[in-house]
Amino acid sequence: MIDVLKENERYDELNRNGYEIIQNPDKFCFGMDAVLLSGFVKVKRDETVLDLGTGTGIIPILLEAKTLGKHFTGLEIQEESVDMARRSVIHNHLERKIDIIHGDIKEAGKIFDAASFDVITSNPPYMIDSHGLKNPNEPKAVARHEVLCTLEDVVCAAAKLLKPGGRFYLVHRPFRLVEIMVLMSRYKLEPKRMQMVHPYVDKEPNMVLLEGRKDGKSRLTVEKPLIVYQDQGVYMPEIYEIYGY
Amino acid sequence: MIDVLKENERYDELNRNGYEIIQNPDKFCFGMDAVLLSGFVKVKRDETVLDLGTGTGIIPILLEAKTLGKHFTGLEIQEESVDMARRSVIHNHLERKIDIIHGDIKEAGKIFDAASFDVITSNPPYMIDSHGLKNPNEPKAVARHEVLCTLEDVVCAAAKLLKPGGRFYLVHRPFRLVEIMVLMSRYKLEPKRMQMVHPYVDKEPNMVLLEGRKDGKSRLTVEKPLIVYQDQGVYMPEIYEIYGY
Repeated sequence: MIDVLKENERYDELNRNGYEIIQNPDKFCFGMDAVLLSGFVKVKRDETVLDLGTGTGIIPILLEAKTLGKHFTGLEIQEESVDMARRSVIHNHLERKIDIIHGDIKEAGKIFDAASFDVITSNPPYMIDSHGLKNPNEPKAVARHEVLCTLEDVVCAAAKLLKPGGRFYLVHRPFRLVEIMVLMSRYKLEPKRMQMVHPYVDKEPNMVLLEGRKDGKSRLTVEKPLIVYQDQGVYMPEIYEIYGY
Repeated sequence: MIDVLKENERYDELNRNGYEIIQNPDKFCFGMDAVLLSGFVKVKRDETVLDLGTGTGIIPILLEAKTLGKHFTGLEIQEESVDMARRSVIHNHLERKIDIIHGDIKEAGKIFDAASFDVITSNPPYMIDSHGLKNPNEPKAVARHEVLCTLEDVVCAAAKLLKPGGRFYLVHRPFRLVEIMVLMSRYKLEPKRMQMVHPYVDKEPNMVLLEGRKDGKSRLTVEKPLIVYQDQGVYMPEIYEIYGY
């Protein structure tokens, strides 16, 4: 039976449709960023979605639960993550809605047809610097640092694979906002909507959520900030809602 | 006597050093944007400052009051505003600290020496569209719409006139943030610090404050949001402080 846990793996509840995801806490577990991205993304009925660098498949699985999209694809380069993501898809009986493809974002233009997705999402590695890493090939390092792909690789792939007018959704760190906007603008994924995520109402943001539109006109809507905690350990109601508690 | 009010003009208090500014409410009065910019700008002891499109001189006058800068210059294209600004300078006995120059931002590279200012500030026109304006030559239209200069003109002038490592400060509307970042990045005024201004804590921002550094490295600090009102008509303490009440 393929739907079985390997060593150190566990099922984690997703609070959506009874879905669970297979994770290995020694390798890499999804963070709040992926969950908040899934709350920021808009997928309309019958749209097709591609997630670039899907890891264990958290974003396609959450979006399948939350939206009326027709089909969801996750592209992932790390074989072990692909294997876990595929077993999670089977575990949740989503084989007809979600495909997990093993491949490199830099090759995405060859793996998929140009202009073939309505929506593309990504929760890419945030950190530029990969030298100095003890184990640059560790799953955690690959997920967090630009070891195997850069921000430009992600934006370039999204630009190729989105239909005209299609939407690109990204979660990233505010300190790289200038680079993000310059790249999205250069690749004609015009940023149209932005939301900053602040741990507390009086703290600097530690995440930024962005929506770009393929060939869109230049005009950005900055939404009210998303605040995570009202008190230590107590989320704001909006966050509980996104998590589905 | 040159220090005299013309028709419909009045003195408005600035709550700093007893300074007053000459304004004509029929033409154009400074807004909260100029005041918040003056609170965001950092001028160190003995630095020189240029304000591009200074209008009636509000930003040089406030910065002279608030900082230890050596000298402040305001460049303004509208003759009537230049005249008012010069009379305000005299009224406040600031002739040795503040110069008001009559000229065009697009010619700034000829009016001033290249790389000659430590700090450049601007509260430029926000609106792109100038067609459809009934009176595009009215002072209010020129101050609010890109009739006589574009955002790129301002950024280009600042890039020419700043010393290496010099700082550029801008207040603008969030809907143009992408364009602002792309231009600042292209002209090597790397955005280093950003603050969004929200009318209320749970509302979208309606202003953005930016600091760029000439030839700076790419890394943006996004500050906690600046909230204007705690209740209708009641400012947040931080705003009272910036205004000097």
